[in-house]
Amino acid sequence: MIDALGYAAEDANSPLRPFTFQRRSPGPRDVEIEILYCGVCHTDLHQSRNDWGNALYPMVPGHEIVGRVVSVGAEAGRFSVGDIAGVGCMVDSCRHCRPCRSALEQYCEEIPTWTYNARERGSDQLAFGGYSDRIVVDEHFVVRIPPSLDLKAVAPLLCAGITTYSPLKHWKVGPGQKVGVIGLGGLGHLGLRFAKALGAEVVMITTSEAKGADALRLGADEVLVSTDPAAMERHAGSFDFLLSTVPVSHDANPYMALLRLDGTMAVVGALTPLAPLLGGHLIAARRSIAGSSIGSPAETQEMMDFCAEHGIVSDVEVIDIADINEAFRRLEKGDVRYRFVIDMASLKAAA
Amino acid sequence: MIDALGYAAEDANSPLRPFTFQRRSPGPRDVEIEILYCGVCHTDLHQSRNDWGNALYPMVPGHEIVGRVVSVGAEAGRFSVGDIAGVGCMVDSCRHCRPCRSALEQYCEEIPTWTYNARERGSDQLAFGGYSDRIVVDEHFVVRIPPSLDLKAVAPLLCAGITTYSPLKHWKVGPGQKVGVIGLGGLGHLGLRFAKALGAEVVMITTSEAKGADALRLGADEVLVSTDPAAMERHAGSFDFLLSTVPVSHDANPYMALLRLDGTMAVVGALTPLAPLLGGHLIAARRSIAGSSIGSPAETQEMMDFCAEHGIVSDVEVIDIADINEAFRRLEKGDVRYRFVIDMASLKAAA
Repeated sequence: MIDALGYAAEDANSPLRPFTFQRRSPGPRDVEIEILYCGVCHTDLHQSRNDWGNALYPMVPGHEIVGRVVSVGAEAGRFSVGDIAGVGCMVDSCRHCRPCRSALEQYCEEIPTWTYNARERGSDQLAFGGYSDRIVVDEHFVVRIPPSLDLKAVAPLLCAGITTYSPLKHWKVGPGQKVGVIGLGGLGHLGLRFAKALGAEVVMITTSEAKGADALRLGADEVLVSTDPAAMERHAGSFDFLLSTVPVSHDANPYMALLRLDGTMAVVGALTPLAPLLGGHLIAARRSIAGSSIGSPAETQEMMDFCAEHGIVSDVEVIDIADINEAFRRLEKGDVRYRFVIDMASLKAAA
Repeated sequence: MIDALGYAAEDANSPLRPFTFQRRSPGPRDVEIEILYCGVCHTDLHQSRNDWGNALYPMVPGHEIVGRVVSVGAEAGRFSVGDIAGVGCMVDSCRHCRPCRSALEQYCEEIPTWTYNARERGSDQLAFGGYSDRIVVDEHFVVRIPPSLDLKAVAPLLCAGITTYSPLKHWKVGPGQKVGVIGLGGLGHLGLRFAKALGAEVVMITTSEAKGADALRLGADEVLVSTDPAAMERHAGSFDFLLSTVPVSHDANPYMALLRLDGTMAVVGALTPLAPLLGGHLIAARRSIAGSSIGSPAETQEMMDFCAEHGIVSDVEVIDIADINEAFRRLEKGDVRYRFVIDMASLKAAA
């Protein structure tokens, strides 16, 4: 019997391996989901390897979860057995702080309960993620998946999707605006699609000229290669909004110079220190650099409905769970277009 | 005959010295102002000494100018001879770019004509600042000074004042908000007064415990010593807005942690690189760090009227022009409460 793939102990340098665990018992407000697909997020790599120094083992990664509801608690009225449902990066929050009361649970002042590498609220029990056959989650943190969407390609929307959708909405991206999406990967290719669907003129900003053709296929109006100083100079001071999906420390200064008066660059990927930022870039045109973290359950639902309306899903490469360690290696090199998704039926096959 | 104090040539390491120059001839839209007082801004020090590598000599510093109108051009209808008038950091702009058309001339895409260390628009002639007996300025860039205000204490409002007033207004500081002003100097003491007058709860954030008593005298509700980690921790995540008046490179990270969800820190003093900013600080609570540059003529007028209404002026130390070099030395050490202002009558005495 295998319940999941993960780390049974503090062995982050070894490959993920078959794993069994005691699952949390469903409560009255919970839904239990049989997992069909789980996306492979860059965070899974960071957390698994304890890159951020906060790893809790044993660990089952995965927070881009799509599945079928197999049981519902007595007080869980939003779902029925058989519904297709999704779970993203969090499974609980304090519910009483100002952000929680404002439907911004991702900014819970007592820290949301992350889907994995966390402890269940008010308990020592570890939360386990989506590289697994089942998950039990409070229905408040579960979203409905419109049946018209391709389920395997929906999974990445639960993290990569909402992480890019939320800032585009918060900073009111829309028609008449010129928007740059920095970095063409799992997040960037969805940010591009959302910004286009919201009506903006969208420029894909990439270090890699080779990615240009694919950016245009994905709907970019133009490609700007950030290593080309003349091209960067041509676009100076012309962007209303920039979305930086770069997942590592980077130098924001060349991008800040692209913003026009009152423009904002939102950082969604880099948690680590950015290169020293010139105060003059901020002051000269009242520019802002900001951050944004995933999205609330309500906003994730809004995004799902928006995706159904506009036919937006992720480009995915579906893998068997037996191939996860190779997928991690390829992910590390940026070799995926644009998201690995585990077909969880392969877990039974692996057993 | 002495017209001004300044640098006659590229001799930034020598003291400012008596200086005569050919003044620009007034045009039909100009007003000519006999200068009564001129504030001494930190920028004067930077520019004089070519700290930013863009010095144009000969140079007459000074952009916090209050004086009496002595002549008006045929098409300059807003002023009459004898009016008290002020001139700040700029004396012209392109007038046709989007910012100029939006009454945000300080962000002119073709760069405003600064009051000194600049060339007159469409000309090779240098612009000379306020350490002088007279100045000639297009009336669009001249503000009316309400007669109820103490003129010598008004001068610093033209730069230090508007630099702090503009971001407080732009980010909608008002009642119910907790606002921190970082740095108690020429800018900070005015930012504190404005934020209080706008109805916010105001905390003066300073590295110097010794400045605490004066901050309370100036109206601060509380003083937070930023070198006290326990005090910083007590205020973590509690500020709606921070105004950083620190005039040099600094580490914004400890301040970012003070902001609550969606809080903004506006930098108005530091043009140089800030210490590496943690992306995680931005992302964790959708925080922003932004910049803001002085203010437009229209907003400067609004501020002057606000100052008259609320009785706000600068704390000043009035000096004779003969003492300017000593004032520069003291300014460099931060030894002024809170702004030197030159009584320009002393120029005639020095002649």
